[in-house]
Amino acid sequence: MSISCEVLAIGTELLLGQIVDTNSSWIGEQLAMNGIGTHRQVKVGDNRERIVQCMREAFDRSDALIVCGGLGPTHDDITREAIAEVMGVDMHHDEEVAERIRELFASRGRRMADNNLRQAQVPDGAVVIEQTRGTAPGLICPVHHPNGEKVAYLVPGVPHEMKDMLERAVLPDLRRRSGDPSVIVSRTLRTWGESESGLNERLDGVIGRLDAVGNPTLAFLASGWEGIKVRLTARGRNRSAALALIEPFEDEIRRELGTQVFGQDDDTMESVVLDLMRARGLSLGLAESVTGGLVGARLTGIAGSSDVLRGSIVSYASGVKFDLLGVPEGPVVSEAAAVAMAEGARRVLHSDVGLALTGVAGPSEQDGMPVGTLCVGLVVGDSAPLSTTVRLPGQRQQMREFSVISALDLLRRTLLAG
Amino acid sequence: MSISCEVLAIGTELLLGQIVDTNSSWIGEQLAMNGIGTHRQVKVGDNRERIVQCMREAFDRSDALIVCGGLGPTHDDITREAIAEVMGVDMHHDEEVAERIRELFASRGRRMADNNLRQAQVPDGAVVIEQTRGTAPGLICPVHHPNGEKVAYLVPGVPHEMKDMLERAVLPDLRRRSGDPSVIVSRTLRTWGESESGLNERLDGVIGRLDAVGNPTLAFLASGWEGIKVRLTARGRNRSAALALIEPFEDEIRRELGTQVFGQDDDTMESVVLDLMRARGLSLGLAESVTGGLVGARLTGIAGSSDVLRGSIVSYASGVKFDLLGVPEGPVVSEAAAVAMAEGARRVLHSDVGLALTGVAGPSEQDGMPVGTLCVGLVVGDSAPLSTTVRLPGQRQQMREFSVISALDLLRRTLLAG
Repeated sequence: MSISCEVLAIGTELLLGQIVDTNSSWIGEQLAMNGIGTHRQVKVGDNRERIVQCMREAFDRSDALIVCGGLGPTHDDITREAIAEVMGVDMHHDEEVAERIRELFASRGRRMADNNLRQAQVPDGAVVIEQTRGTAPGLICPVHHPNGEKVAYLVPGVPHEMKDMLERAVLPDLRRRSGDPSVIVSRTLRTWGESESGLNERLDGVIGRLDAVGNPTLAFLASGWEGIKVRLTARGRNRSAALALIEPFEDEIRRELGTQVFGQDDDTMESVVLDLMRARGLSLGLAESVTGGLVGARLTGIAGSSDVLRGSIVSYASGVKFDLLGVPEGPVVSEAAAVAMAEGARRVLHSDVGLALTGVAGPSEQDGMPVGTLCVGLVVGDSAPLSTTVRLPGQRQQMREFSVISALDLLRRTLLAG
Repeated sequence: MSISCEVLAIGTELLLGQIVDTNSSWIGEQLAMNGIGTHRQVKVGDNRERIVQCMREAFDRSDALIVCGGLGPTHDDITREAIAEVMGVDMHHDEEVAERIRELFASRGRRMADNNLRQAQVPDGAVVIEQTRGTAPGLICPVHHPNGEKVAYLVPGVPHEMKDMLERAVLPDLRRRSGDPSVIVSRTLRTWGESESGLNERLDGVIGRLDAVGNPTLAFLASGWEGIKVRLTARGRNRSAALALIEPFEDEIRRELGTQVFGQDDDTMESVVLDLMRARGLSLGLAESVTGGLVGARLTGIAGSSDVLRGSIVSYASGVKFDLLGVPEGPVVSEAAAVAMAEGARRVLHSDVGLALTGVAGPSEQDGMPVGTLCVGLVVGDSAPLSTTVRLPGQRQQMREFSVISALDLLRRTLLAG
């Protein structure tokens, strides 16, 4: 039996555009990955009558409803009252919930305002999803409906609290209700170096075989400077059974794509490059022109990058390239300039590896090179310098972002080949 | 007469979380600013029956409906067919629309696939909103409903096409229907240096006077490293009348907040600092540690920054601070180190001004300084160096982003005072 689940996001600030509702998108993705149909997502303000109306309409159409937000302690937070009205029940004080709220405040050394106890109000018949990260518990609320038994899941609007409750309680409960005791596991291969249509073509054979079996499924997700994600999702009776279904296809895709796969799941190009450098005991020095510091900013976004990264010379003015990095006078958007920048960075920053980027982000061309041109220079120890020129799409910011992943990818491939 | 307008976003990719629906948020904000009530926003997939159902339900509740997406050339794009069904009319080919599509392809030197002419299909009785940025026109569709005459506005899902049509055609039409011939004008003051509650307190008097008159209205928008926006919105019979209403309050707020207001409307801290430096004929050299290149990346995100910015020394390793920038050996998270870095940047990059950042982004403390500590050093020409230490909130990335705007703000205030 397949079941359907809608999403209702509560909050006047969502309608007014003061906050973008990213929760519903994330929930929609999780529902899809778990094989649960979802046909509608609604946003409504902090108005009890309208919230009740939205809930009733959702149950007329669907088996389940995830309600996000409006569980806080203030008078605006009326999701609990609304679902109790839809359920046709009263609310009661739950002392266990209250005790956890008191403990949370005590552990943070803060005084608890009395209105926080509103969050210990539970509709009769509802099951509490214990709060572990915030003060508001989630609620699983049975709803009797002429079309059958329905269910509402109330979760907080704070994203990390919501995600925790979804993964811990809501999705497992939905899967149980769908009569499907299986678990869903996905493996994301992170790739760089081929367009989505190029990947599609190269994986034509495996896509055909995946379509034939139907489990696992495959999806491409183009993700800007995070690369293109190739995601395999399988359903199995437990985690290891699902992974066993994924494994042969994952192996086949990895064989086909080779070094285009730079990592998996939560890996990023930055984390992978830092790990490769660290494993080889190599330090890195950067010279950036077109990216203006973006490569350094990205690498140092990762805690522990100081093991590897000594620094970056952002040589935005040509004079800095000539004087500090020792680039010969001449066109500065060229592979020769990029190599000289990389050598200069290595020398000035006392690093083992020098990586340099120069290019044209626009709005106008430079040195006769069109907007989108990126030249990368790379010097690893005493090996011969490497360089490459690529043409990148997009406006200024996008071109610069693609420059970051392109340059780091050259370093990665060189380290793997070395 | 006040009218109400809902928003319907079309696309299975929205439900599956592959794209976050930012359009509805932006539209909601615009509706609110134009005094048009909006009580519900819905996302639905590319399914004709469900789209039609969503449209019908919206007209049962509201006077108007903005429908976003599903106007492209592919077989998934069925918003035109759905509204024609709701209107109970046929569609016809609009040759003017077709001609504009052909011209657009010709101007880009691309071949037009025949399916693009689907975008020239117009429901009988609908008015075309001319497409100026993409291939799909918008449509204003009258809908007869037992409760009265309703209207649907169909706009593309591509954000810049949608925004253009909203501003050019949809919002003026909605205001006309609301019987309100006035225009809405807003002025956003960009601030840095005080929390939202701090601003609220300082502006207590003017907020009281604004509440008393009701027009203009004031809103605070905390926007991360874009600062806190203070927005005045006024309604007037024309643009200059609305601006005249805003002006005295804007003057009062500017007087109260002084240099905390760093710009207005589309200004950013980066653009303001670059303009101030350019006006004074000063060049800038950076030395970055905690931000790892983020200040340089942010400044170079603005085309034309090369007039001012010579470069940045990202001295992530302490050795680079000592050797290249000449920072004395010792704790590197200190105002003394920040000043030495700024002097080093000025010397090495041959700039008039040196600005430096060192701090602790976490996860652990450094040199006995807690996570969130930022030390900024600044040297302007031969003046005595300046420095400051601030404690910033947030996790690693947020702390680094606040560091960028904090350091640039010190430079801005110093230039203004000098």
